[in-house]
Amino acid sequence: MSIRYPNGKIFQGSSNIPIESKKKFSYSNRGMTLEEDINVTNHYYLERQIAVIHKKPTPVQIVNVDYPKRSAAVIKEAYFKQASTTDYNGVYKGRYIDFEAKETKNKTSFPLQNFHDHQILHMKNVKAQSGICFVILRFATTEEVFFLEADHLFLFWERQKKGGRKSISKSEIAEKGHMIPIGFQPRIDYISIIDTFYFK
Amino acid sequence: MSIRYPNGKIFQGSSNIPIESKKKFSYSNRGMTLEEDINVTNHYYLERQIAVIHKKPTPVQIVNVDYPKRSAAVIKEAYFKQASTTDYNGVYKGRYIDFEAKETKNKTSFPLQNFHDHQILHMKNVKAQSGICFVILRFATTEEVFFLEADHLFLFWERQKKGGRKSISKSEIAEKGHMIPIGFQPRIDYISIIDTFYFK
Repeated sequence: MSIRYPNGKIFQGSSNIPIESKKKFSYSNRGMTLEEDINVTNHYYLERQIAVIHKKPTPVQIVNVDYPKRSAAVIKEAYFKQASTTDYNGVYKGRYIDFEAKETKNKTSFPLQNFHDHQILHMKNVKAQSGICFVILRFATTEEVFFLEADHLFLFWERQKKGGRKSISKSEIAEKGHMIPIGFQPRIDYISIIDTFYFK
Repeated sequence: MSIRYPNGKIFQGSSNIPIESKKKFSYSNRGMTLEEDINVTNHYYLERQIAVIHKKPTPVQIVNVDYPKRSAAVIKEAYFKQASTTDYNGVYKGRYIDFEAKETKNKTSFPLQNFHDHQILHMKNVKAQSGICFVILRFATTEEVFFLEADHLFLFWERQKKGGRKSISKSEIAEKGHMIPIGFQPRIDYISIIDTFYFK
C-alpha cells in the first residue's frame, strides 16, 4: 500500500534519512518541472513558517468575458502578456526576496535568451532597493540546480550586450553561483543559500 | 492646448505648487478607481527609484488555448480564480511590503466582507516573517484614504468572528490607522506613512 500526502502525492521515502543516503535517491524522470519543484518547495517553506514566497499568476490580457446566468463568469477571449517582473517573490526574515527560475536542456552552458531586458531591469530595480535578488538555473539533463546572484547575471548580460557570448558557461555558473542542495523536503532548498550569504 | 504625459494623460498642474494650495485641487469625479490611483503611485515610486511595488496579475485558470498559425495564442476558455494572497507587494529599503487596497461607498464604516479568510491568513504569514503589511482603505464619497496596519485589521476580523460587528467604523479607522496624504504626485503617498512608522 502506498502512503499518500494530503495533496494526493505518493510518499516515497522518509525525510529522516541521513543526507548521505538521500543523495542516492534518484530524482530523474520524476516528470516534475522546475516550476513544480519550486512550488512544492515554497509550499514547504510556507507550512513550516520558514518563508512566504509565491509564484505570481501568469499575466493575461482579458478581452471578452461571458456572464452566464447562475454560473461563473467565463473568459472567452484573452491573450498571454509578457511579464514585467520576475515570477517569484516574497519575504524571508523581513527581507524582500525576488527571483526567476529557468531550466535548459543544454549540458555545458545556460542560454541568456531565457531572460528578457525588462526582467533584467526589474532585477536591477530590486537590487537598488536592497532586495535579495537571484536566479535559479537548472541543467535538466544532470538535474543540477544553481543559485546565481543577480549581480553576476547582470555582468554576463552586459558581456552579451557588448557582443560577447550569448550564454553563461556551466563552469562560470559553478564559480560565481552556488549549487543548491536537492533533497526530498524541501526539494530545492534555496533558502539555505540565502541564509549562508545574507544572514550569517 | 492641453499638455500630455507620455502615457497620454493630460497634465493638470505643476507638482511644484506648495502643499497648501495643492490641497485646494479637487480630485473628485476624476473617474479614477483606487486601483488606478495606486498603479499610478507605484509607477511614480518606480521611476523615481523610491520603491519597487507591483500589482499582481489577476489569477486565471486557463482551460482551453487556441494556437492559430502565424498569430498569437488565444485563450478561448478560462475562469477567474480567487487570489491566495494580497494584490500588491514589493520592496522598499530592503524591506518586504505587502498590502491590499479596497474602497467602499459606505460613509461611516468599512465592511469587512471586502476581505477573505485566505487573505487574512496570508497577511498573518507575512507579519510572522516581519514583512510590512497593511491595507489601504478608501471612502469613495469623501475620497478619504487610510493606511491601516494589518495587526489592527486582524483585531477587527477577530471581533467579527466572535459575533461582533461586520465592519470597521470610520472613527476606529481614523483612530487606529493613518490618513494617507492625497496629492498630485504621488497620488496616494503610502510610502510616507511607512517611512514615519518603520524607518524613523
